[in-house]
Amino acid sequence: MNLKKYNFKYIVEEKQQGILRVFDSKEIPFKIERVFTVVNASSGSKRGQHAHKKCLQLLCCISGEVELVCDNGIKKTIISLTPKNEAILVPSGIWAEQNYLINNSVLLVLCDQPYDESDYIRDYENFLKWKGIKK
Amino acid sequence: MNLKKYNFKYIVEEKQQGILRVFDSKEIPFKIERVFTVVNASSGSKRGQHAHKKCLQLLCCISGEVELVCDNGIKKTIISLTPKNEAILVPSGIWAEQNYLINNSVLLVLCDQPYDESDYIRDYENFLKWKGIKK
Repeated sequence: MNLKKYNFKYIVEEKQQGILRVFDSKEIPFKIERVFTVVNASSGSKRGQHAHKKCLQLLCCISGEVELVCDNGIKKTIISLTPKNEAILVPSGIWAEQNYLINNSVLLVLCDQPYDESDYIRDYENFLKWKGIKK
Repeated sequence: MNLKKYNFKYIVEEKQQGILRVFDSKEIPFKIERVFTVVNASSGSKRGQHAHKKCLQLLCCISGEVELVCDNGIKKTIISLTPKNEAILVPSGIWAEQNYLINNSVLLVLCDQPYDESDYIRDYENFLKWKGIKK
């Protein structure tokens, strides 16, 4: 499914000054055109449930745990996103869902495209048609 | 002190699916070269305490509350960063500190420069000299 993994700096600071994560453009295979974050999602909530025609998204869990389900229309892959696990680059043409497993998980997403509603496929049947899997 | 304020999309989702924040490059006055996040800093911890010679930093608190202290060597400005308040663009040549007021606050910082240690001034006396305020 071509889900590339990326390791970003994870620095535990002294004196309980927290955890610093650094995402440097040199380590990212595209120019960052959009950043979004999700906070305060209740444990058990499901987000995403759409595909992008063009947009690439690099998903990194910076707190808690988020289960990422990627579906190319033929098979599904499930990946656990946590602060200690790798970030995952979700290519275009993948139906992706995120299941928030822990309250107060925080997801950071870096994108190669600005927001464009016409880039979203929000209906699974349409996704299968767009992929040429279903007529 | 030329601290510009930015409002980014703040979307409270239905069904307790969390809060989405969107930082689109069209709304940001520079190309994003680096992104960093701070999580798990204990309430009362102090971060930053340095200035940048060139780097611009856009600071946005996406959870909790962080007090931002900006000092140009002559005067100080204190700003409360919260998810509902604006993000603050800290220009270069400002000594900045962040005081984490609430456990589990999350700070997102967007930068116009990749990491370069020579861009940091980490000593306050050197900062005053670099500013030409002290000889």
